[in-house]
Amino acid sequence: MAKQNGHRAERSGGGTRRINGRLLARLIGEAPVERPYYLAIARSVSGLVLDGRVPTNTRLPAERDLAAALGVSRNTVTAAYAWLRDNRFLESRQGAGSWTVLPDSGTSEPSPFIPTAEHIDLGVAAPPAVEGLRAAAFQAAERLSAHVGGLGYYPYGLPELRHAIARRYVERGLPTTPEQIFVTNGSQQGVALAVDMLLQSGDEVLVESPTYPHALDAIRQAGARVRTVGVTPQGWDMEYLVDAFRQWKPGLAYLIPDFQNPTGALMDDDERRILVREARRAGTHLIIDESVAELAIDSGDLPAPVAAHDTDGRVLTVGSVAKLLWGGLRVGWVRTTPPMVARLMAIRQRFDLAGAVMDQLTATHLLADVLRIRAERSRQLRRNRDVLLRALRERLPDWRPSVPGGGLVLWTTLPHPVASALATASVRHGVHPAAGPVFGADGTLERYLRLAYTQPPDVLTDAVERLATAYTETLVHPVQPRGQLYV
Amino acid sequence: MAKQNGHRAERSGGGTRRINGRLLARLIGEAPVERPYYLAIARSVSGLVLDGRVPTNTRLPAERDLAAALGVSRNTVTAAYAWLRDNRFLESRQGAGSWTVLPDSGTSEPSPFIPTAEHIDLGVAAPPAVEGLRAAAFQAAERLSAHVGGLGYYPYGLPELRHAIARRYVERGLPTTPEQIFVTNGSQQGVALAVDMLLQSGDEVLVESPTYPHALDAIRQAGARVRTVGVTPQGWDMEYLVDAFRQWKPGLAYLIPDFQNPTGALMDDDERRILVREARRAGTHLIIDESVAELAIDSGDLPAPVAAHDTDGRVLTVGSVAKLLWGGLRVGWVRTTPPMVARLMAIRQRFDLAGAVMDQLTATHLLADVLRIRAERSRQLRRNRDVLLRALRERLPDWRPSVPGGGLVLWTTLPHPVASALATASVRHGVHPAAGPVFGADGTLERYLRLAYTQPPDVLTDAVERLATAYTETLVHPVQPRGQLYV
Repeated sequence: MAKQNGHRAERSGGGTRRINGRLLARLIGEAPVERPYYLAIARSVSGLVLDGRVPTNTRLPAERDLAAALGVSRNTVTAAYAWLRDNRFLESRQGAGSWTVLPDSGTSEPSPFIPTAEHIDLGVAAPPAVEGLRAAAFQAAERLSAHVGGLGYYPYGLPELRHAIARRYVERGLPTTPEQIFVTNGSQQGVALAVDMLLQSGDEVLVESPTYPHALDAIRQAGARVRTVGVTPQGWDMEYLVDAFRQWKPGLAYLIPDFQNPTGALMDDDERRILVREARRAGTHLIIDESVAELAIDSGDLPAPVAAHDTDGRVLTVGSVAKLLWGGLRVGWVRTTPPMVARLMAIRQRFDLAGAVMDQLTATHLLADVLRIRAERSRQLRRNRDVLLRALRERLPDWRPSVPGGGLVLWTTLPHPVASALATASVRHGVHPAAGPVFGADGTLERYLRLAYTQPPDVLTDAVERLATAYTETLVHPVQPRGQLYV
Repeated sequence: MAKQNGHRAERSGGGTRRINGRLLARLIGEAPVERPYYLAIARSVSGLVLDGRVPTNTRLPAERDLAAALGVSRNTVTAAYAWLRDNRFLESRQGAGSWTVLPDSGTSEPSPFIPTAEHIDLGVAAPPAVEGLRAAAFQAAERLSAHVGGLGYYPYGLPELRHAIARRYVERGLPTTPEQIFVTNGSQQGVALAVDMLLQSGDEVLVESPTYPHALDAIRQAGARVRTVGVTPQGWDMEYLVDAFRQWKPGLAYLIPDFQNPTGALMDDDERRILVREARRAGTHLIIDESVAELAIDSGDLPAPVAAHDTDGRVLTVGSVAKLLWGGLRVGWVRTTPPMVARLMAIRQRFDLAGAVMDQLTATHLLADVLRIRAERSRQLRRNRDVLLRALRERLPDWRPSVPGGGLVLWTTLPHPVASALATASVRHGVHPAAGPVFGADGTLERYLRLAYTQPPDVLTDAVERLATAYTETLVHPVQPRGQLYV
């Protein structure tokens, strides 16, 4: 009975993660340097929550513990927690402690992902919808008449969409049948289901560092031990990659060879061949994330999809229309073997049964026009990328940004390891970059920042002005977090 | 290295479940009685797969093991497996064995959930779309212009939809704010996320028996120990229910008090009050599935939602538009406290980030007209239910069907424990009922069948003809499976 009640209190106390006073103090930067202290502490913590370094739903330490760790009075921490509660970064319940939330939770305000005039979000790499999306939605409503008499469940995906996706692979040089396509509710679901299918608890999983944090979270939550291989804007260290496969023989690897997120690196044909060969030797399944594979910016031949080197069904390719067409269209897929398609379908029944019919009809319609859309996106992204690079060169000449050949983000090196402190300061100036540690599977990435160039040129220029101000402020008042929560 | 290879072979061999020769023989019914034997075996196995008693993605025993367990020659089993492969119930790979799949897997044929003239599916309780759905889809396409300039991600759900859902609860007598609503990709996702949030591995979870199999699957896969409380068309044994809470103090309970699936039982106000009181005493979170709460057939006052008795945020109510509007609209929700809404949002990021915007706009539009739609569904379902009951009374007078006051299914008692054999035989006659054991959390339910009345009257009448033929055949050739895989 006592044990049961203990369980219950823990559960209603805001989730499974905790952070102790010592670690939170380290992340905040030991002793506050700004005055009033309580506000400096509160702003540091809110910045940590905003850039994902302290996940939402993390139980914060008791006030006295954090006070001791920071060397401040308990009243200071009480005031800091009160500010966080008032600003909706913290929820508390009597006897159950306080846990982190995002500030818009429990409000009907626009979500933090929606940019407003006051707040420029360079942290989320999602472009507005392509031209023609609304027209395609009308077409979808037209074509709905062929479906409304039925049950509306297409457990494998709408047949015409599976055809359209397969045809697109054929156009890209990879023979593919509709039976090899499993339609999902976006690429994240593709990754999550593939991991659920392939991973056995305790398996080692190889990922890049830095990498896409939501995928990493899905892999970690599935109980995997994560091994990393480094990647930079210049690419993968292939010797290290080969060694990683031979030494660890991971059960699974999750990689983004096409305009890697966040570095923008593009793996060439030879490297792809070597990757698949080593995976085969090591008995590894490869989950290849092609979310932005269709978003080349500069002209030139693209390498063939990684799956073109596959000989025995070990490459699962995850794709999505979210970046090419619009994030509000929840349509992604996994390309694999027909038996694995059947297994993915069976697993999905536990999660959400099937996908939205209208979104699938809309995506089908637009995929018929993919070449025009690619060209439109390419023009738009080239313009934005170049504006952002120019503004950075002018206002922040000692930063060293990548010049990605595709995708939606650039990855810049900072002269000092202040990414998290800078992200915190930037939020105060109404701009939200993504700090390097967000993308880290291990080690710190405090010398890096990811900036999305999905917004219009004038907004990007304005954002760089704000970043420059925040950067100066950060160097003058170095509230430097160290370490990171993902350990 | 050897261990790694062993892992790999197991993984590519079709999943984590296995069934041994002895157990499969028991399910088939020990020795085949029909001739040719191989066909009797193959048909039994295909029936077990079709009604979900042997899940897809289950590794079958080696041919010699099944042959020994059935007391037949190995050639007979080889021929049975070949038939299953030819009919796409089985996939095999050299060195990796054979595993069960659904026959349409890897084809672009209509899914098994889509009824055709040759095959009447009474197993899936999903009605066609309501009138006005297509018009609402056009409205949604119109209103998309307000969204296509944004990122398309609404992690909590579209604000206007959260308002519409909250308003509907208010109309039903339960004060609710939009901040209490978390929008999901259908009710199954609501259940899966709530379980993920609330369950700690090894917890006990109380469910009804019989219950909704996909929810049960999500609970089991989360690592829960399942306890059951019985329910019949006459309702819940409240004394037993109270005792279950007091004795087991489950961390979580999943219940369907509104037109329970599959029994159709409706919990009255007093019972709801007792349920919440006992949950509070035991420290149990309640997941209340209201998927069909809006589908009353007969007139009369309905009890208030279970959450109306909640005083401390322990009731999480899961709802959906799938049954009221259309299954192809992937819109559901969880009604809970604002802090839990924030936690659900954080957890969802691992799975699929957000829901489809167009579906949410369409659902918002239709919910404004919910009273007309309820009336339309009620008329349709009353007509269908009564036609099905009449046909059963005429053709199968010794069956004892429930007369549900709402929902989409009836639950009938059979005079003999032959549900699985009957389901297998029925498929041969082009009709697919759901056998009782599909809904069992424990024990066998071989004396029960669930029949959906979502199809038009003439189809239902035809289906009963076919069921009657299959039933006669089953009694004459009793290939009786015993036991069940869910143990």
